[in-house]
Amino acid sequence: MGKTVAEKIIKTHLVDGEMRKGSEIGIKMDQTLTHDVTGTLAYLAFETLKIAKVKTEFSISYVDHNLLQVDHKNMDDHLFLKSTAEKFGVYYSKAGNGICHSVHYQRYAVPGKTLIGSDSHTTTTGGLGVLTIGAGGMDVAMAMAGEAFYLTMPLITNVVLKGELQPGVAPKDIILELLRRMSVKGGLGKIMEYTGEGIKSLSVPDRATITNMGAELGATTSIFPSDEVTRRFLKAQGREGDWTEILPDEDAIYDEVIEIDLNKLEPMIARPEMPDNVVPVKECSHVKVDQVYIGSCTNASYSDIKKAATILSGKTVHPDVSFILSAGTRQTFQELIRDGVIQNLLTSGARIMEPGCGACVGIGQAPNSGGVSVRTSNRNFKGRSGTLDAHVYLASPEVAAATALTGYIEDPRTVFNSKELATVVEPTEYLVDDSQVIKPKNKHTDEVEILRGPNIKPLPVNEGMTENLKAHVVSKLGDNITTDDIIPAGSIFSSLRSNVPEISKITFGRIDPDFVERTQQYKKSIIVGGENYGQGSSREHAAIAPMYLGVKAILAKSIARIHKANLINFGILPLIFRDKKDYEYIARDDELEVVQMISQIKNKKISIHNNTQNLIIEAVLDVSDREAELLIAGGRLNYVKQKN
Amino acid sequence: MGKTVAEKIIKTHLVDGEMRKGSEIGIKMDQTLTHDVTGTLAYLAFETLKIAKVKTEFSISYVDHNLLQVDHKNMDDHLFLKSTAEKFGVYYSKAGNGICHSVHYQRYAVPGKTLIGSDSHTTTTGGLGVLTIGAGGMDVAMAMAGEAFYLTMPLITNVVLKGELQPGVAPKDIILELLRRMSVKGGLGKIMEYTGEGIKSLSVPDRATITNMGAELGATTSIFPSDEVTRRFLKAQGREGDWTEILPDEDAIYDEVIEIDLNKLEPMIARPEMPDNVVPVKECSHVKVDQVYIGSCTNASYSDIKKAATILSGKTVHPDVSFILSAGTRQTFQELIRDGVIQNLLTSGARIMEPGCGACVGIGQAPNSGGVSVRTSNRNFKGRSGTLDAHVYLASPEVAAATALTGYIEDPRTVFNSKELATVVEPTEYLVDDSQVIKPKNKHTDEVEILRGPNIKPLPVNEGMTENLKAHVVSKLGDNITTDDIIPAGSIFSSLRSNVPEISKITFGRIDPDFVERTQQYKKSIIVGGENYGQGSSREHAAIAPMYLGVKAILAKSIARIHKANLINFGILPLIFRDKKDYEYIARDDELEVVQMISQIKNKKISIHNNTQNLIIEAVLDVSDREAELLIAGGRLNYVKQKN
Repeated sequence: MGKTVAEKIIKTHLVDGEMRKGSEIGIKMDQTLTHDVTGTLAYLAFETLKIAKVKTEFSISYVDHNLLQVDHKNMDDHLFLKSTAEKFGVYYSKAGNGICHSVHYQRYAVPGKTLIGSDSHTTTTGGLGVLTIGAGGMDVAMAMAGEAFYLTMPLITNVVLKGELQPGVAPKDIILELLRRMSVKGGLGKIMEYTGEGIKSLSVPDRATITNMGAELGATTSIFPSDEVTRRFLKAQGREGDWTEILPDEDAIYDEVIEIDLNKLEPMIARPEMPDNVVPVKECSHVKVDQVYIGSCTNASYSDIKKAATILSGKTVHPDVSFILSAGTRQTFQELIRDGVIQNLLTSGARIMEPGCGACVGIGQAPNSGGVSVRTSNRNFKGRSGTLDAHVYLASPEVAAATALTGYIEDPRTVFNSKELATVVEPTEYLVDDSQVIKPKNKHTDEVEILRGPNIKPLPVNEGMTENLKAHVVSKLGDNITTDDIIPAGSIFSSLRSNVPEISKITFGRIDPDFVERTQQYKKSIIVGGENYGQGSSREHAAIAPMYLGVKAILAKSIARIHKANLINFGILPLIFRDKKDYEYIARDDELEVVQMISQIKNKKISIHNNTQNLIIEAVLDVSDREAELLIAGGRLNYVKQKN
Repeated sequence: MGKTVAEKIIKTHLVDGEMRKGSEIGIKMDQTLTHDVTGTLAYLAFETLKIAKVKTEFSISYVDHNLLQVDHKNMDDHLFLKSTAEKFGVYYSKAGNGICHSVHYQRYAVPGKTLIGSDSHTTTTGGLGVLTIGAGGMDVAMAMAGEAFYLTMPLITNVVLKGELQPGVAPKDIILELLRRMSVKGGLGKIMEYTGEGIKSLSVPDRATITNMGAELGATTSIFPSDEVTRRFLKAQGREGDWTEILPDEDAIYDEVIEIDLNKLEPMIARPEMPDNVVPVKECSHVKVDQVYIGSCTNASYSDIKKAATILSGKTVHPDVSFILSAGTRQTFQELIRDGVIQNLLTSGARIMEPGCGACVGIGQAPNSGGVSVRTSNRNFKGRSGTLDAHVYLASPEVAAATALTGYIEDPRTVFNSKELATVVEPTEYLVDDSQVIKPKNKHTDEVEILRGPNIKPLPVNEGMTENLKAHVVSKLGDNITTDDIIPAGSIFSSLRSNVPEISKITFGRIDPDFVERTQQYKKSIIVGGENYGQGSSREHAAIAPMYLGVKAILAKSIARIHKANLINFGILPLIFRDKKDYEYIARDDELEVVQMISQIKNKKISIHNNTQNLIIEAVLDVSDREAELLIAGGRLNYVKQKN
């Protein structure tokens, strides 16, 4: 039977289970990546394993988020990461070298390999034919230790791209169209695999935009074949040797097929405050804009930025607009400078920021109160920009540039002869310079001292599961709660990532300021959620902080994949209502009770007695036997320690 | 009798008093500048005056400090400033256009004119033959209203520069040498006027480095003649028409003469934690460095940065060093990009930041805990970098670049053939582009709505002076307390500048966390200080916040000029011990009492009864009659309201 691209890579990396849809599989991970806001916990976890060096083919620690350095904590984190990298045999990409996903697909991703990264947008390298998965830092630590990564074998959805994008329409519009059709839950439990004649006209950076935002579909990952386009890209990066062709078999069978006719696509935009709130740009053309941001791991390639510069060339941005721009990587920044693109953008009034995650995740460039910001990034969740009442729209660089020019959300085709954009392509030879990536030396690890600033605290460990649980409902939430809602990003909050006791104090702070106080009152508590609980960023603090505050279970209609894995890793029960209607029979502050917990976990069915309302709610524990053991042990660190 | 450059300009602007050393004079101010962290209060004050348009020849509002935008507050401030600029007829320099002082000397400063700015480093434009003074926002608001600026006619010190700087020795070393000789109090009550053959080889940007850091001497201002060098600079800026020659008369009489032989000068460095803690660089060559920062209004000109790039050319910075660089202005940034300098610096591993104040004032790029940072900026006060226990050294761009290369504080002459630096000069034609400065339209002011974000609060007003004062000593401090000690800068604190009630909560927070609590306990209080109380930044929050907290007087051995003016403007008594030994007869928490206050203010002698220790302390109120009236009224806003 023919295989898809994803299946081919899974097959060669399968170390546990069978490649049968819906069953748990264990995959060997060839590469790992971390960044500075999720990485510190990953290395703290790795450290507890007492393993001298990582066991992967290639592991790298990027610094790309907390570049503002608002106080000592950021640079302390950087030095901690630099020293752990040296100690454990990990490459270290210095602050300013660029965004992890963008640097990784440019310099380190290899078609046919597997990659796990402690960031949900690790899926970006799928654009280069890598099977690439975002996870919590704990899972990345385990992969560095040579352990398999476990997941439920996903369904594989074939997205068939027909035709060719018309001038002024961008790769971003393809993924926005998919979000419009499928919603932020549409990809749950699926791999999105792209084929069709339309992919031939998409460069690797174009493809990376699409696989990047596959994360917003909730998809496990997204992948393009490794084809001639991939070969040309790797050649231009001076690493043609990394290329192998990986195409789907002609008789490959997909679980679902979606067609998009690129000829008919038009510029799209995601309105506040969810990436699937997508409409054609022209429907928003009356909206006055305060800020435009071109950047992020989604849309800050050479051609992305050059297209924006082409639209703006010889013109000045609207005086009411603050126009922020940053290249995805130092390499791209250097190429854009070499070719006069940055000069042109400066002349047009762009504010050029250091390559990094920045504004995308609210680390700087927060908009004004109630302001409107049009961004090329991937998420527009409420408050993610750093301003709680700002209105963030997501669009292509072309739309962003046209908007900066007029001060209103703008279809680029109305202000610019978009045919000129066709001449803007990626370089045939990139400006390769890896000097800001420090290779691990072959030092004896004992000689390397880990630098631990005062804000870097040990990783807290959960207690083992108790036979009986009595806990209160500390919070009852609606659908699509994001990990940004649970633990906000932004420059201040992100700088607390290495200090769980401290960051726990802000749990749910933005949407429920009394949450922490109630957890202290109840000691043991349970959170009730709606659909797609924990979507968005992979940040495992959204599991660890509640764990630290005594949260014992999440009881929701559905739970997002990465967050569910994080909950299990830290010993929090991820429970699903057997009957979603039961959501109505539970209220905040109710006392819930579970007896004979351990045998119920083994049976994966949990009866919860609502003592307050005196009724029984049945929940499903949709986990593997392996995961059930982790939960009983009180999380992965306990489990590993018990095994040794 | 012959006149100095300073005297010539004062004479043509004198509107009150006599130009006699030590007596109060009132000067007409031709130009004003503000920036975003002191500007909001200046325009809030101006607003209360109910004047339609500014009455100066040229007023400009720069946004250069709070560019990180960590939440809504920064951009709210920017929009407030943009709208007040439009309403009151003020130019508005957008975020990203550059540092106020650097943009101002490049584009707007005119030799022979007067300039007042709400920043202590407004003295920078003295390098171009401008009589230029830093002051609190209230004084700038009054200047915008057409009021004279009052000061005590300073002594004039002639700094005679002989010979020529040797390769590897920089203009920065001249001002560091002066700081070594004179200390941070050495310039109090003085204008530093530069002459001698040595000035001919100093470009306007070189001169601006020296006049900039004249602020660190405590000098009222610093000035260079407007000569052929000045003409060439203005010509290169496309504004030769702004030039007039202003040289000192041959028989000009100076109050003091200091000679520096440039031939003998060597690279200098200011050690932590005061700018006058200066030694030759070679004495620090063992110090390992974590961070290097080239930037700020002191040292981020075209030639400054190109010299650094020349030293680094073809080499990579030490892997342990985080190397931060930002050009002073957008113009300079564009020129450096055009000429390939930024490209070279990126290749060497520089992290390029947006033009702005940034790291200098702890707005980003805070070093690691206990870290060592070598900076080309002007102040190394404890904590100013954003990291309380960091060790900041101040040096030239050449020293900074050499240090970035080796990872240790380094004399550039030991790692580079410094003769090559002689070829690095300023452009003969600058890349002029004022597109990011918004000119005020001739709109009717009623049509312009001032945009006021939720963090922008009205300026609080003091009560009038009471006949009897009973107050407690809330704090007893040592010498050289800076305005950074009183109200810290940094990205978080600076974003509270438009909200006095909120920012007051952090008063003295870094050195005395219980200060605010004690002011609340005492209601009315007095601060006892040592020498040079309130030195450093002009931030008037260091007066307003204590005023808001009930501080009625400062009783110190001496008080820095700008801070004293700010205290008077907000109705706080600036008292000086008649006998400095009395400092010993006063302790924290003592109850002090002054009777018949108003007549004592008029007599400028204040008898203070220390009720706790039962003794009398005599204090001097060294103010003019005009200032005494302001104090009795309870500050300048009350005074103006009472007059109208």
